[in-house]
Amino acid sequence: MTLSLQDPLLATYALAASLMILKTMAMGWLTVWRMMQVKGGYRAPEDLRRTLLNRAPDPAQLAPDERVERMRRIHMNDLENVPFFLAAGFLFVLTGPPLIWAQVLLYGYVASRLLHFAAYVTAQTHDLRATLWTLGSLMVMGMALRVVWVVLA
Amino acid sequence: MTLSLQDPLLATYALAASLMILKTMAMGWLTVWRMMQVKGGYRAPEDLRRTLLNRAPDPAQLAPDERVERMRRIHMNDLENVPFFLAAGFLFVLTGPPLIWAQVLLYGYVASRLLHFAAYVTAQTHDLRATLWTLGSLMVMGMALRVVWVVLA
Amino acid sequence: MTLSLQDPLLATYALAASLMILKTMAMGWLTVWRMMQVKGGYRAPEDLRRTLLNRAPDPAQLAPDERVERMRRIHMNDLENVPFFLAAGFLFVLTGPPLIWAQVLLYGYVASRLLHFAAYVTAQTHDLRATLWTLGSLMVMGMALRVVWVVLA
Repeated sequence: MTLSLQDPLLATYALAASLMILKTMAMGWLTVWRMMQVKGGYRAPEDLRRTLLNRAPDPAQLAPDERVERMRRIHMNDLENVPFFLAAGFLFVLTGPPLIWAQVLLYGYVASRLLHFAAYVTAQTHDLRATLWTLGSLMVMGMALRVVWVVLA
Repeated sequence: MTLSLQDPLLATYALAASLMILKTMAMGWLTVWRMMQVKGGYRAPEDLRRTLLNRAPDPAQLAPDERVERMRRIHMNDLENVPFFLAAGFLFVLTGPPLIWAQVLLYGYVASRLLHFAAYVTAQTHDLRATLWTLGSLMVMGMALRVVWVVLA
Repeated sequence: MTLSLQDPLLATYALAASLMILKTMAMGWLTVWRMMQVKGGYRAPEDLRRTLLNRAPDPAQLAPDERVERMRRIHMNDLENVPFFLAAGFLFVLTGPPLIWAQVLLYGYVASRLLHFAAYVTAQTHDLRATLWTLGSLMVMGMALRVVWVVLA
């Protein structure tokens, strides 16, 4: 396989991977947005200095704020999952799977993570969130297992 | 280098990388398993809702539980290390090292991380855990340094 | 594109990526160095055992120490950013951008993260740190957006 984005398998991967990169980076921005909304949830002691962005510092700004912490938990969940999807998906397309399977797994993963985000940010039940996490986790492990299988076969 | 899993260098990388992806994803499952065992160690306030998976909610379920936290620490240690192994190992095989060196470094890394897991999950001394972490960390940095060297040479 | 480190685009990526891998791995070592300096900031209960590296254990060693925590926060910030740069940068060079743009974005990212480190480790204002983070974050998102654009066009 020469790596060309005109190859439909690699194009599928590149699109799914880029969307997951943008989704994860967005969590940093959502955390910042919430910190500006609640004017708190900071972590570094120097963030209590008076600056343009923090005109009225207050020690309480270093206390955890659930609206900020929720974004951090979602971000953390992405860090536990997305980098491994990025690597597994790339190796998976190198095994030359049928295009339809690549589309189902790679776009299906993106869908599972967007639904996981929707469930988490609106505080749905643990059961729903866990189901969506499970779905994505199984897809990543399935892709990695296929790579192991192809290499050893 | 065209990327073919029949190339022994790329096959070595693909196998080692897939094993590390599966290992890290397994930490998520081990954390879930421990949370179900101790019926606690949760983090989101909504996890105290009564659901099929949590039939007897109790505020104490949101307190940290060492059996769960241990899994989270091991998972975190993977997040600090494995993604960088995945990227460094890929670039390292692109430099065309001798196959035997690739096998020693890539499979050696997998072994060092499995031993690190074994030492951490059974609460061995800090010294043993640190030694195994050091070994893996040096291998990743060695691979990255070779890439820098080859590009600049 | 066959993947050759003699290709200037791929060489640019490989160099920038390796530097970011080394930078992030260095955070682990800096955290260890600070823990040895302050003889504390540990996290695992077994780290209070008497060993060669810890000859005078004391329960206070498990309390957070700001000099250690600062390194951990910088490390965490890398984990939230660098893995996504590594993936986005690779896909970005596959889109065949002009070399000068690749150099500006990839080396510019490395510079933004080194400055972010310098600002964070010396406890500069939140505003300066946030500006440097924003710069790097926009570069990663810009690269990912170009990949989306090229695949869909």
